[in-house]
Amino acid sequence: MQKTISQAVIRRMPRYYRYLGELIDAGVERISSNELSSRMKVTASQIRQDLNNFGGFGQQGYGYNVKYLYEEIGKILGLDCQHNIIVVGAGNLGQALANYVKFEKRGFVITGLFDINPALAGLSVRGIEIHMMDELEEFVKNHRVDIAALTMPKEKAEACADRLVELGISAIWNFAHLDLELPEDVVVENVHLSDSLMQLSYNIVSRRNRV
Amino acid sequence: MQKTISQAVIRRMPRYYRYLGELIDAGVERISSNELSSRMKVTASQIRQDLNNFGGFGQQGYGYNVKYLYEEIGKILGLDCQHNIIVVGAGNLGQALANYVKFEKRGFVITGLFDINPALAGLSVRGIEIHMMDELEEFVKNHRVDIAALTMPKEKAEACADRLVELGISAIWNFAHLDLELPEDVVVENVHLSDSLMQLSYNIVSRRNRV
Repeated sequence: MQKTISQAVIRRMPRYYRYLGELIDAGVERISSNELSSRMKVTASQIRQDLNNFGGFGQQGYGYNVKYLYEEIGKILGLDCQHNIIVVGAGNLGQALANYVKFEKRGFVITGLFDINPALAGLSVRGIEIHMMDELEEFVKNHRVDIAALTMPKEKAEACADRLVELGISAIWNFAHLDLELPEDVVVENVHLSDSLMQLSYNIVSRRNRV
Repeated sequence: MQKTISQAVIRRMPRYYRYLGELIDAGVERISSNELSSRMKVTASQIRQDLNNFGGFGQQGYGYNVKYLYEEIGKILGLDCQHNIIVVGAGNLGQALANYVKFEKRGFVITGLFDINPALAGLSVRGIEIHMMDELEEFVKNHRVDIAALTMPKEKAEACADRLVELGISAIWNFAHLDLELPEDVVVENVHLSDSLMQLSYNIVSRRNRV
């Protein structure tokens, strides 16, 4: 894949994947871009454009084969291989992530939790052990780690991310409320809950002003 | 505010707010759009354009007054009034939200947690009581609720959102992995963790293919 595809397109792909999965569950075998459009509340032309970035998949007069499209989008999203995740920060949020069985179905397997709180040492969440931070180097040496989720306070996240990158981890799922400064080849995906809450409150206030 | 401002702009505002907050903490009193630009890795023209949507705030030759801009963006984001939140689903994720003291500093106050699990009845998280779902109507009648956070499994989220909207709650912070079908005047902000994880894995795979 040589072409650079905009992150706006990438952001819509998981949603297509989700809707196609629901269609499969409902026994739907094929669907036109118009039908998919009205379900997803995205224009049919948007759908065609988005999918054309990856070569199309539709057939004139037939529409999309749901299962095929689902699988192809899965491959595009890298869901055809397993991604091992460690969660750094085993507080409520880290434990919540470890408890999400649905991630595993998509190939995202949480293989270890890490924390500095000695009260958590040796405990486990859904069979996943909580390690102490001083075991991190040893763990990463002996296990393949594809992604590190950072679920720790902002103050400690930058130093921790640097340490993870130094250990060779090159993908960070960042829940800490800051923008990490990392080498360019490290992939970072942010989940900034406060930002999301502020966006919600903007929309609340702006609705109030409109009425 | 009559003009409709694109959600892309709104999505950037919390980030401005965050950076300005850090500048205040660092004792910076004013900043040029160029300096802000290099810190935030957004072009200076993007910053000017974004802020012009709300009337500007900058002064030729002076730049931005950090504290003033911070407060103004705070007002735009609705942070100058208190938003009461209930969290429906008191599992790990719901409890993680209840434990985020930083939300409160921004005016987002979690006033109650709700769950169907009788083992949680009467317990509390950081002083916030966990109620059973059959107390929901009574609670909403007696307390102002501005936002409901849905942190329950996908299967139950749609019915629960309908029930909340019927009770007059018109803003939903949705963590359940589906797109809610709600009346147009209900404001919804989604946090789809699986989508975010898939976007991360897309970027991992596409980096691998580039190298």
